[in-house]
Amino acid sequence: MTPSAPTPAYRRLSVEERRTQLLNAALTLFAHRAPEDVSLDDVAEAAGVSRPLVYRYFPGGKQQLYEAALRSAAEELQNCFDEPREGHLVPRLSRALDRYLTFVDQHDAGFSALLQGGSVVETSRTTAIVDGVRRAAAEHILRHLGVSDPSRLLRMTVRMWITAVEAASLIWLDEGKQPPVEELRNWLVEQFVAALSVTAGRDPQTAALAENLAEQAAEQHTEPSAGQPTADS
Amino acid sequence: MTPSAPTPAYRRLSVEERRTQLLNAALTLFAHRAPEDVSLDDVAEAAGVSRPLVYRYFPGGKQQLYEAALRSAAEELQNCFDEPREGHLVPRLSRALDRYLTFVDQHDAGFSALLQGGSVVETSRTTAIVDGVRRAAAEHILRHLGVSDPSRLLRMTVRMWITAVEAASLIWLDEGKQPPVEELRNWLVEQFVAALSVTAGRDPQTAALAENLAEQAAEQHTEPSAGQPTADS
Repeated sequence: MTPSAPTPAYRRLSVEERRTQLLNAALTLFAHRAPEDVSLDDVAEAAGVSRPLVYRYFPGGKQQLYEAALRSAAEELQNCFDEPREGHLVPRLSRALDRYLTFVDQHDAGFSALLQGGSVVETSRTTAIVDGVRRAAAEHILRHLGVSDPSRLLRMTVRMWITAVEAASLIWLDEGKQPPVEELRNWLVEQFVAALSVTAGRDPQTAALAENLAEQAAEQHTEPSAGQPTADS
Repeated sequence: MTPSAPTPAYRRLSVEERRTQLLNAALTLFAHRAPEDVSLDDVAEAAGVSRPLVYRYFPGGKQQLYEAALRSAAEELQNCFDEPREGHLVPRLSRALDRYLTFVDQHDAGFSALLQGGSVVETSRTTAIVDGVRRAAAEHILRHLGVSDPSRLLRMTVRMWITAVEAASLIWLDEGKQPPVEELRNWLVEQFVAALSVTAGRDPQTAALAENLAEQAAEQHTEPSAGQPTADS
């Protein structure tokens, strides 16, 4: 961007701002159409810029723009689980899932297209980006659990739950966003707690975590400041 | 196949037998190498036949052979869940999972390549085949549950578990087939029962199923012929 007088239609943006603007325009389009149905012209039009400008930022054309958009979406999805590590696990996970499901809701068709693959522009690079999101989400959740060296079965439990959340999100979109998002979120959190309990029966590390969770649940049911688990929960 | 004297190297097979032989050779190769690393020459060599013979059966070349192998693997995977609908659910599911995990064990790299996608020969057709396996497995499980008109949440629970089984299988292969397959199988069945219990809290249809399952579990713990749930289980 030269500092010369801007064309009226263009706001003067920094390189980074312009890039973000184009990626957002692309993500918005991918949210409603499959990537193969989105052209660079559409992106230029949606961003209110010229086609050559889109090419200046993404000289690799559509594939490069698609990958950059996927990377930016992946980053946003990963950050969903990056919740301050304070307070109880269940409300923390609920907040993370709220963000995740908001993303799913806002990007619906785009989310499906990004995660389901089978798109004509899919490559092993895009598959690697999607796998990266899953791995990063698993890392975040293990950190929420306060575990730095997870047992094999605990790691499997977390990764399986992430796959299940993804599958549930895709089914939820398929089903016209039913049940309501709050119910879906609570149900998914309950599924995680139940999965941990099952693994607790086979794995001492998870058993300790499950006990901790049960204590937190007991605290929830007494005064917030009490911290004493009640006998009946 | 003409009825003239067979070349010594070739057994005389019916068209169907020959096709099956070639598909098995292909599946064995895909089990140890990614599809893109398998050539038609490799398949011919593994089956002990000439390359032109492979082309006679699969004139579309490698892509056709790959899709036929994928379809045959998909059929085998689907049939894993086609267990006689008699006796209790948990042992029935365990037998189905035993077959599924045996398939995973025998086809390891091939299973990953088939299910993980991202392969250079992936097309929307191959994605549809894999989705078909998931759908068929879900149908089988709903039939095992004795449900013909599943609620939204019950269907979601079953589909999520199938995704989780698939994810667990891929992780299990990644982890050098640890934990032992019997432990993996029992853990997966327990995960399903736990997932149903969670859904039971939100869905009357699933609640009735879960009650039924609890009764079956109680029967398991008394004499096999008793059929009376005990009070303490």
